[in-house]
Amino acid sequence: MYLQKMFSCSQFLARTNAMQAFIRAASQGKMPLARAHGKSFAHRSELRQAKRIVVKLGSAVVTRGDECGLALGRLASIVEQVAVLQNQGREMMIVTSGAVAFGKQRLRHEILLSQSVRQALHSGQNQLKDMSLPVLEARACAAAGQRLYDSPPGSDDAKLLDTFYPGDQHSITYGTKSRVGIGGMEAKVKAALWALQGGTSVVIANGTHPKVTGHVITDIVEGKKVGTFFSEVKPAGPTVEQQTEMARSAGRTLASLEPEQRSDIICTLADLLTERKDEILSANKKDMEHAVSTGRLSPAMLKRLSLSSSKLNSLSIGLRQIAVSSQDSVGRVLRRTRVANKLELEQITVPIGVLLVIFESRPDCLPQVSALAIASGNALLLKGGKEAANTNRILHELTQEALSIHGVKDAIQLVSTREEVEDLCRLEKMIDLIIPRGSSQLVRDIQRAAKSIPVLGHSEGICHVYVDHEASVDKAIKIIRDSKCDYPAACNAMETLLVHRDLLRTPLFDQIIDMLRTEHVKIHAGPKFASYLTFSPSEVKSLRTEYGDLECCIEVVDSMLEAVDHIHKYGSSHTDVIVTENEDTAEQFLQQLDSACVFWNASSRFADGYRFGLGAEVGISTARIHARGPVGLEGLLTTKWVLRGEGHTAADFSEQGSMTYLHENLPVAQVLPGCRTTS
Amino acid sequence: MYLQKMFSCSQFLARTNAMQAFIRAASQGKMPLARAHGKSFAHRSELRQAKRIVVKLGSAVVTRGDECGLALGRLASIVEQVAVLQNQGREMMIVTSGAVAFGKQRLRHEILLSQSVRQALHSGQNQLKDMSLPVLEARACAAAGQRLYDSPPGSDDAKLLDTFYPGDQHSITYGTKSRVGIGGMEAKVKAALWALQGGTSVVIANGTHPKVTGHVITDIVEGKKVGTFFSEVKPAGPTVEQQTEMARSAGRTLASLEPEQRSDIICTLADLLTERKDEILSANKKDMEHAVSTGRLSPAMLKRLSLSSSKLNSLSIGLRQIAVSSQDSVGRVLRRTRVANKLELEQITVPIGVLLVIFESRPDCLPQVSALAIASGNALLLKGGKEAANTNRILHELTQEALSIHGVKDAIQLVSTREEVEDLCRLEKMIDLIIPRGSSQLVRDIQRAAKSIPVLGHSEGICHVYVDHEASVDKAIKIIRDSKCDYPAACNAMETLLVHRDLLRTPLFDQIIDMLRTEHVKIHAGPKFASYLTFSPSEVKSLRTEYGDLECCIEVVDSMLEAVDHIHKYGSSHTDVIVTENEDTAEQFLQQLDSACVFWNASSRFADGYRFGLGAEVGISTARIHARGPVGLEGLLTTKWVLRGEGHTAADFSEQGSMTYLHENLPVAQVLPGCRTTS
Repeated sequence: MYLQKMFSCSQFLARTNAMQAFIRAASQGKMPLARAHGKSFAHRSELRQAKRIVVKLGSAVVTRGDECGLALGRLASIVEQVAVLQNQGREMMIVTSGAVAFGKQRLRHEILLSQSVRQALHSGQNQLKDMSLPVLEARACAAAGQRLYDSPPGSDDAKLLDTFYPGDQHSITYGTKSRVGIGGMEAKVKAALWALQGGTSVVIANGTHPKVTGHVITDIVEGKKVGTFFSEVKPAGPTVEQQTEMARSAGRTLASLEPEQRSDIICTLADLLTERKDEILSANKKDMEHAVSTGRLSPAMLKRLSLSSSKLNSLSIGLRQIAVSSQDSVGRVLRRTRVANKLELEQITVPIGVLLVIFESRPDCLPQVSALAIASGNALLLKGGKEAANTNRILHELTQEALSIHGVKDAIQLVSTREEVEDLCRLEKMIDLIIPRGSSQLVRDIQRAAKSIPVLGHSEGICHVYVDHEASVDKAIKIIRDSKCDYPAACNAMETLLVHRDLLRTPLFDQIIDMLRTEHVKIHAGPKFASYLTFSPSEVKSLRTEYGDLECCIEVVDSMLEAVDHIHKYGSSHTDVIVTENEDTAEQFLQQLDSACVFWNASSRFADGYRFGLGAEVGISTARIHARGPVGLEGLLTTKWVLRGEGHTAADFSEQGSMTYLHENLPVAQVLPGCRTTS
Repeated sequence: MYLQKMFSCSQFLARTNAMQAFIRAASQGKMPLARAHGKSFAHRSELRQAKRIVVKLGSAVVTRGDECGLALGRLASIVEQVAVLQNQGREMMIVTSGAVAFGKQRLRHEILLSQSVRQALHSGQNQLKDMSLPVLEARACAAAGQRLYDSPPGSDDAKLLDTFYPGDQHSITYGTKSRVGIGGMEAKVKAALWALQGGTSVVIANGTHPKVTGHVITDIVEGKKVGTFFSEVKPAGPTVEQQTEMARSAGRTLASLEPEQRSDIICTLADLLTERKDEILSANKKDMEHAVSTGRLSPAMLKRLSLSSSKLNSLSIGLRQIAVSSQDSVGRVLRRTRVANKLELEQITVPIGVLLVIFESRPDCLPQVSALAIASGNALLLKGGKEAANTNRILHELTQEALSIHGVKDAIQLVSTREEVEDLCRLEKMIDLIIPRGSSQLVRDIQRAAKSIPVLGHSEGICHVYVDHEASVDKAIKIIRDSKCDYPAACNAMETLLVHRDLLRTPLFDQIIDMLRTEHVKIHAGPKFASYLTFSPSEVKSLRTEYGDLECCIEVVDSMLEAVDHIHKYGSSHTDVIVTENEDTAEQFLQQLDSACVFWNASSRFADGYRFGLGAEVGISTARIHARGPVGLEGLLTTKWVLRGEGHTAADFSEQGSMTYLHENLPVAQVLPGCRTTS
């Protein structure tokens, strides 16, 4: 049987220019009985359990692009990966095409394995090309599988899907999409089906791209979304790509609803949160019990996971506020211009498109973020943590129930917990904005993974309070205490206290230190501060540290301008504060400092969407484009330009034309985004 | 002498965990005499000319991270690269550290070279670790250089500079910046200096990262910015990193000037363009002569390169318009909120930071883009094409002369033509926004290269005109002609004409076809259109084609909604037009279509900053965040939040606190960004 499987694999030879590695996984041993009956894996994540893997190398993988013999480095790194997997206790087998019956590059991989590296290098250039067919080749070819020589050469321009299910409509879509090289692809798909019948999962991937060669095989076995995964077991739900398409399509309808209808949906969801709280709390109980039994979550994380009747009530109240904000969010006119006679231009707000929100632990995030998406007319993909799977599921069901009242159920999709964040971050052109909601580590990871999709968020909050020599004692003490101690883990908490040199050895300074001691704030000394002291607290390791706890750094500066320089150098452009009674100094600080939030005589803790009065908070951004600082609903909006004419053409405005530009500003209703108009 | 050089190279052994490849290049043969006297290269681009290259592999490069023997794949791919370089006619030499006297992983690379691949694989696991020291090692060690065993181990956490010049202040900065592993680094720097004295250029690079291993050596020899380049010849000007820092610093001063001062600078530049036109035109003449003599530029490109007295005049007029727009750009209050009693919040416009503008051919781009940057208070790095080097140099000098009048000369920097666009796109954290100005190919290349820096621009303009069955004949003909023929190469020109099915075989349809024929527009048929015709024009290859010429696709749709679907599927969300007399149909189209610009009964050619009345045009963006459609000065601005209090703290607003949030909107002056207020 094993041999037979090997032969079935040999079917997948890439006779194309395509450079591909074929992987086949069959399970044994620990696997459930069903698998032994020849069922292929349903999901990539199961590939980790594969016990027997056949790696089939296309000829392009084995030979060099410049036709100068064997791709020695590539080959060796593949062998290394196979060795790693073998050492993990799997049965590994490599088969190559031998395929160079094409005539151009005659591979002699069996010979290579017998010859020394030095020989291979020396002979690499020309010798291999001209060598005569040795006895070994017959065997090599047998291993590689003759059958494939029947399939016509294809092309690798055609992009394969992430996952391919036979019988799925994709098999048709695919065939029509890729006009180039259908022959080769058809043969491959047929071969894959043949293998699937035998219960073998197949992955076809590019094996020559220099950025992946070194880890393509191990990546595939780890379940990463590399190449195309063939499976005859179709998972219950739609793929994440299908979900994104469904969301985008329903999202367009959501965006075209009346503001009152969007508000309606949010209020319905708010109602459901309290009406159906028993269901929610019972699902949450399951998650809590599971979390406690596995003991993997810290007490703080357990607290965030847990829902209560009162949490649901305040969540519901928050949603009703978002419903109010939603009234003037989409379709607001920002600018009106009479371009010319009977040619009028409007700039109006529109949704961004499809958002992906990735959140950890806190299931209350789900209805909140959903309400923000609905209010702004955006489609939404939600990816929550495994630990909250049951709670998230019921909350998502209620959200879709609310969306249904205006026929846009699919606008918000919950992504399977199986999907890797990394893979989601690669869905460019499908997702328009990613919003991570969680630890700064999560944000950093996502910023790194999402190369071509913008990420709204901040990974660091290194906030400063600068106490000027003309500061009021009371205000300084109050503001420092609040900035550091009100909620030390918040991103808008103070991490570094900058003190004007003249304050050293004054009563104010002693009062600050006393207060910090009373509040149990651990003090680290900046190098300049330390140099002023006979006995200094431990010196900071870095002036760019986010303690996120009852700890802070104190550093001394000679002037307000030096404080500004310090903050530019070590800060994260989040929120920085000056405490002074001198208005000129304050205004200079506010003007010169290049941070998202700059405060005069106010605690850094005010840097927050609710406190700013933005109505609903999407997050805080330290990016420099789009939205900056606390972001309200308008951070989820973009604009479009609407021009209405009566047959106007650019030629009408040329020197020979009859028209002239007026560019007259027309009044627009002054409603501020996301704010309740009170005046 | 050769041997001696080899020994000097052997100094650079990485005795750290750092994984590094050392490259040494000395020139011979074709090189000027000066080089033979032992001068190292001044710039990486010269590495291409290297005739003799010694590649020194650190132990981490040679051995596997998991301590399971030799890194076979890595080693082989390095050998492959060296072979490629050798085959180019260079003298190549590989030396390894042998360095594993550390005891953990005993390398036997000489043995490996003699043993078969299969042997190496079999023995890889344990055998090599335990092998006894063979005779060969003495030789290997000699080649690798004993001296290094004297230097203490360092760390590779410390980031090296792109280029290292001894005697430069960097050598000091560097030492203090990297506290970790100074020992190892010091030793390396000393060793590099030793080699430089002998006239050898040195590059130290990471040789183990899987994404670079396959091409790190060839990349270095091709002059790419990989690792750290050591040179004792310091190029005349500052490095691009230094230029960026200078620009950012002067840019902050520029941003803090009064609007009148920025306007002043722009007007001065406008004056200089006409006052000093002889200098400019003579520099431009040089560029033109050079371009003509090399014959590399097409007539169209030559035309773009050439300046004239009248071009300079209209450039100067354009600058004065930007000067006007600049008056209310930076520091404009967008929103004012009374958060609480005596706690007031403002959201104001501020510059984005440092812009990088990459432009081709057209040197008139330089003063124009400079004026936009000055108007918006941004620092600017300019990267122009080699073909316009002389013209760009004088234009940049004049720009700096204008900037000098308010002491901000360095805010705009011209980057050397030597710098690769790719390298510039990697300067994350130094550059805040990239604006490509040139072909859609340039934009695409930059979007690909700039992974973590936002790019403002559009790479495609696939614009549609949909002619509804209720369209006016006159308007349809006028709009189609203007959209396609006014300037076919523009991004806002029509590429696909969608026609309602009911119009087929009507006089209107015939008139459209006649007009397109008269205008010499080549017609391609969409599949549905083709199916309606007995004899159809050539069918389109793809419905998503930007012809950029007197060509277009015609396709038939059954309804306005089908037109919307078609545009969503094949368009680029740039500009799309409906021609109809039915207002309901038009408003539905305008509402449902998700493009940056949606027009009713107006030519697609109006999608333009000047025509929209934005005052100054930065570009057109098809991105969905930040700026969308034609972008005026506000596309170069972000916002910051200014909060002014009297010692307010978050705790004051807690349940126990004495204050309550008011969140009262306060009026702001309604000046629209970049627009001349006429009402």
